[in-house]
Amino acid sequence: MAGGNRRITLAARPAGFPTESDFALEEAEIPEPEVGEVLVRALWVSVDPYQRGRMSEARSYATPLELGDVITSQTLGEVVESRDPRFKPGDLVVGQLGWQEYAVARAGTLQRVPEGLEPPSLALHVVGMNGLAAYFGLLDVGKPRPGDTVVVSAAAGAVGQVTGQLAKLAGCRAVGIAGGPEKIRDLRELYGYDAAIDYKQDDVSAALREAAPNGVDVYFDNVGGDVSKGVVGRLTVGARIVVCGQISQYNRERPEPTFHPGALIVFRARMEGFLVTDYAHRYAEAVQRLARWVADGSIRYREDVTEGLEHAPRAFIGLLRGENRGKALVKVADRS
Amino acid sequence: MAGGNRRITLAARPAGFPTESDFALEEAEIPEPEVGEVLVRALWVSVDPYQRGRMSEARSYATPLELGDVITSQTLGEVVESRDPRFKPGDLVVGQLGWQEYAVARAGTLQRVPEGLEPPSLALHVVGMNGLAAYFGLLDVGKPRPGDTVVVSAAAGAVGQVTGQLAKLAGCRAVGIAGGPEKIRDLRELYGYDAAIDYKQDDVSAALREAAPNGVDVYFDNVGGDVSKGVVGRLTVGARIVVCGQISQYNRERPEPTFHPGALIVFRARMEGFLVTDYAHRYAEAVQRLARWVADGSIRYREDVTEGLEHAPRAFIGLLRGENRGKALVKVADRS
Repeated sequence: MAGGNRRITLAARPAGFPTESDFALEEAEIPEPEVGEVLVRALWVSVDPYQRGRMSEARSYATPLELGDVITSQTLGEVVESRDPRFKPGDLVVGQLGWQEYAVARAGTLQRVPEGLEPPSLALHVVGMNGLAAYFGLLDVGKPRPGDTVVVSAAAGAVGQVTGQLAKLAGCRAVGIAGGPEKIRDLRELYGYDAAIDYKQDDVSAALREAAPNGVDVYFDNVGGDVSKGVVGRLTVGARIVVCGQISQYNRERPEPTFHPGALIVFRARMEGFLVTDYAHRYAEAVQRLARWVADGSIRYREDVTEGLEHAPRAFIGLLRGENRGKALVKVADRS
Repeated sequence: MAGGNRRITLAARPAGFPTESDFALEEAEIPEPEVGEVLVRALWVSVDPYQRGRMSEARSYATPLELGDVITSQTLGEVVESRDPRFKPGDLVVGQLGWQEYAVARAGTLQRVPEGLEPPSLALHVVGMNGLAAYFGLLDVGKPRPGDTVVVSAAAGAVGQVTGQLAKLAGCRAVGIAGGPEKIRDLRELYGYDAAIDYKQDDVSAALREAAPNGVDVYFDNVGGDVSKGVVGRLTVGARIVVCGQISQYNRERPEPTFHPGALIVFRARMEGFLVTDYAHRYAEAVQRLARWVADGSIRYREDVTEGLEHAPRAFIGLLRGENRGKALVKVADRS
């Protein structure tokens, strides 16, 4: 029987801000695994800002999608059929499988969800890419010392919620920047940020005078643009700016430069970009710690769940508008 | 007798590009040293881009000049009178003594010109602040590896001429960017750059395709602005941008941001500012090596000499226009 595999494809390259018509819901065949391959049924798919980059024609660190391609995403799924000894039906795995109900993957490209991880969807965020980005970005790029003040933008997002809590674990003062009263409450009450700034209400630079009275030693930046402009004047000498994302710029035809590099001389500051995939050789170290911290309550989180694969584009557009509260996920199916 | 100490003071804060009327030539008393102080007669004064920053009201890493203050500069002079056992008349010293014929300084703030340094004026550039900036900026911030391609902007300037040659000593390919055929010839023939780009003639990004076929591993930036925009697309993964100066921006009311930080993610690049004074504890190491390299011909240089203290403002304005060819110096007097 034809079909049976619903999927979301790129119907048009978004001009600026994406709209739902840039996506198409299609139905394809359920693929068959060959030797060394595994058929996976999606339970959850991830919604992340980086996906916007794949929809543009411009070549970046990854190849852009072609029109008609399934939207790139991380997927948490269960193995339906395995033609590789490493997996058996029922196993929970994470892979780069895209926004679709079924996908076939080379066994070597799949990660097993850590035993006992509860809920398993954590493997798509705190104990997955987002948590790994927070871990390596903050600790390896930002190099915080106890007593440092760490400022995080998009602090209530999937990466930000983990970053602030890792900063606390590292003995730092954590200051979160986010938009709107609900996120601000989460920063203070759920994630334990020492101070929270609502960039929609407050002047970031002025608010930092109080929130970071000794200046900003590490700025973990997920957004860029005006928020970053507000932070840069508050750096300390020797400050580190970790460039994790620039979500405020992803829908612009021409992304806007943030600040004059002379500021880096004044503060003898370091600004450094990173990709979490460069740390693949150290994922095991981080996954183990993140899983432990989330199990013992040291790291708390919030998921923002959209039900139904067909609504993934809406969830994605909401994410780009900052409407999600916590990690944006789409629930595709229950475990069998 | 009154007077005898001619000096250049700040008559007005420059609005944008400085003019000679922003400076005044005055005559003051020759000061008298107290215990622990030394009276120095200037032989050479230095002309450097950072002086522009001191003329603005905005507080940066150093306190701005007040109107009527002597212009900040490094001076090479000879001791006339010493009330400190460390110095005696006739000693050659370097200090932050300003654009004036005579100055008194605490003995501890003066550096002795290395024995046998020929010509002694090298202590104001290759074997002084400019060479130290090249040394620590390139080696400690840029961290070049043999085989790397190092691109230097303002490559024929006081810092740039040393940076390219240090890159060669470190086993790198050195590519210099400068303006005009004379400087381009110096880059190739005098300083030994492997390739030279005239930013006034060529599109920097296009020229780098040929000059840096494997991409830019280290970008040592003295200028900012459009030149930097041309370099950033040619970075390699893991590239380092050393922010030493931003001379293209110093006369702007609002310095222009150079590029979107997203580029740092794409290239996992590090951009870092520094001040040479942060390396004061290691000056001895660098001075010794720079003096040796200049003596054995490993580092070559060109001085751009203006005669007469009264012409220092003109030399400074020429420097900001990029008219100097090599290190800009003002000769104030002959050694006695």
